[in-house]
Amino acid sequence: MVVGRVTPTTVTRVRHGDGSTTTEQVDDVLVVEEPLSIQLDGRLVATTMRTPGHDFELAAGFCFTDGLLAGAPVTGVRYVAGPDRSVHVDNAVTVDTDGRAPEPRPRLGNVSSSCGWCGSDQIDDLCLRLGPLDPSPSIGLDVLATVPAAVRARQELFDVTGAVHAAAVFDREGRIIVVREDVGRHNAVDKVIGSMLLDGRLPLRDRGLYVSGRASIEMVQKAWSAGLATLLAESAPTALAVESARRADMTLVGFLRADGFNVYSS
Amino acid sequence: MVVGRVTPTTVTRVRHGDGSTTTEQVDDVLVVEEPLSIQLDGRLVATTMRTPGHDFELAAGFCFTDGLLAGAPVTGVRYVAGPDRSVHVDNAVTVDTDGRAPEPRPRLGNVSSSCGWCGSDQIDDLCLRLGPLDPSPSIGLDVLATVPAAVRARQELFDVTGAVHAAAVFDREGRIIVVREDVGRHNAVDKVIGSMLLDGRLPLRDRGLYVSGRASIEMVQKAWSAGLATLLAESAPTALAVESARRADMTLVGFLRADGFNVYSS
Repeated sequence: MVVGRVTPTTVTRVRHGDGSTTTEQVDDVLVVEEPLSIQLDGRLVATTMRTPGHDFELAAGFCFTDGLLAGAPVTGVRYVAGPDRSVHVDNAVTVDTDGRAPEPRPRLGNVSSSCGWCGSDQIDDLCLRLGPLDPSPSIGLDVLATVPAAVRARQELFDVTGAVHAAAVFDREGRIIVVREDVGRHNAVDKVIGSMLLDGRLPLRDRGLYVSGRASIEMVQKAWSAGLATLLAESAPTALAVESARRADMTLVGFLRADGFNVYSS
Repeated sequence: MVVGRVTPTTVTRVRHGDGSTTTEQVDDVLVVEEPLSIQLDGRLVATTMRTPGHDFELAAGFCFTDGLLAGAPVTGVRYVAGPDRSVHVDNAVTVDTDGRAPEPRPRLGNVSSSCGWCGSDQIDDLCLRLGPLDPSPSIGLDVLATVPAAVRARQELFDVTGAVHAAAVFDREGRIIVVREDVGRHNAVDKVIGSMLLDGRLPLRDRGLYVSGRASIEMVQKAWSAGLATLLAESAPTALAVESARRADMTLVGFLRADGFNVYSS
């Protein structure tokens, strides 16, 4: 179901070859991005550009993976009007904990409270907040190799637009539990983890997380917070992602290619 | 010069084929990401995960493309200690305007002041703030086709890590004026535009902007704010990017492939 998440357009397709250039008008489909304001108990905590759909999962997943819930249970998620009463009611969501989550602190930018911190400080902070992952037998390399194709077969938005990221949770046999797509790769991960959270299925022991892009420290943080001890990234990880995965005892696999991949942490 | 922007590591390379799987330990190189706190006249406005290098350009470019300067001239850019006096002095930068830029308002998340707004409101806001682009003859399709390879030849970080985005400004003949690389594609664009800003070369009439990833509304906004009437994106644009490019009279080209590309707005 891609209604509301894509929009039709007409583009000029330019093709060159044999020393000549041809152009033609063709129908095309674009992926939609709209802002979503996320509130926690009615207080604004973030605004993100996202592909509409699974907004409740996105809001709940963001609050959870960002550590804002601090263990408080989610008692409800609902659309709300913005503070200025503008009536785009589908662009603002509040995650309710009946006041049991700590009052959110004002944040600036993408990283919480890091003013002159370095990456290692961030990892220390994660170790302190999230603790070690439960030890679990690692998922077989032959299983990991099958995951990208299995996810790809379920990327309906990518199929029609070629323009969105995907995230998925998979089990020890490589079965795909849930797939979500979004223009933002962080959003896709938050939707997947939010889905599991709202279904009461966290922490995700014996499961892995697949992301269609690169692995940054934020991706490791999100997987870690959900208890996922395996992170499979289509592209390369950053140095900080590798360092944090090693500290978390997380298996981090990246640079997926047709003939293999790299294991950066195990 | 990639020193300080990459770090060595050892990875397990897994290769499968002919029914067997082989593994070997190999030396590899990872791209560095570290937080950078950006201040405007000493007030924190954002913290971004970036690849170190060209930090002054990034900070100045961010303040400029985000509209925070509001026309005020940059009188200096320098490293500062964070508020908690932790001495990672290379992870916090202030952009000085001697108080001539308006006092930054607290923001939440990636989008300024949009609480329940929709994307069209954002475009109206940009039209109001940035005004129409200067009309200029569009850059030839045959010239645009040559830009990606010209940029690629100058992506030294990508060359060794395969893990970073690039942005570049090019002229009507397809000559590359400046290339910057970063783990974040927004950062790469801010570095490029910040470089031009600090060199006193804005607005960039008769120039185009290349981005190695997709085109979102933020990419259009950044190009627009620098006066760039052509935006060339390696991957697909979002619906909001196309809508805003059309409103700005910006040429938006995407989905670059070996044999051609799509023109979404012209």
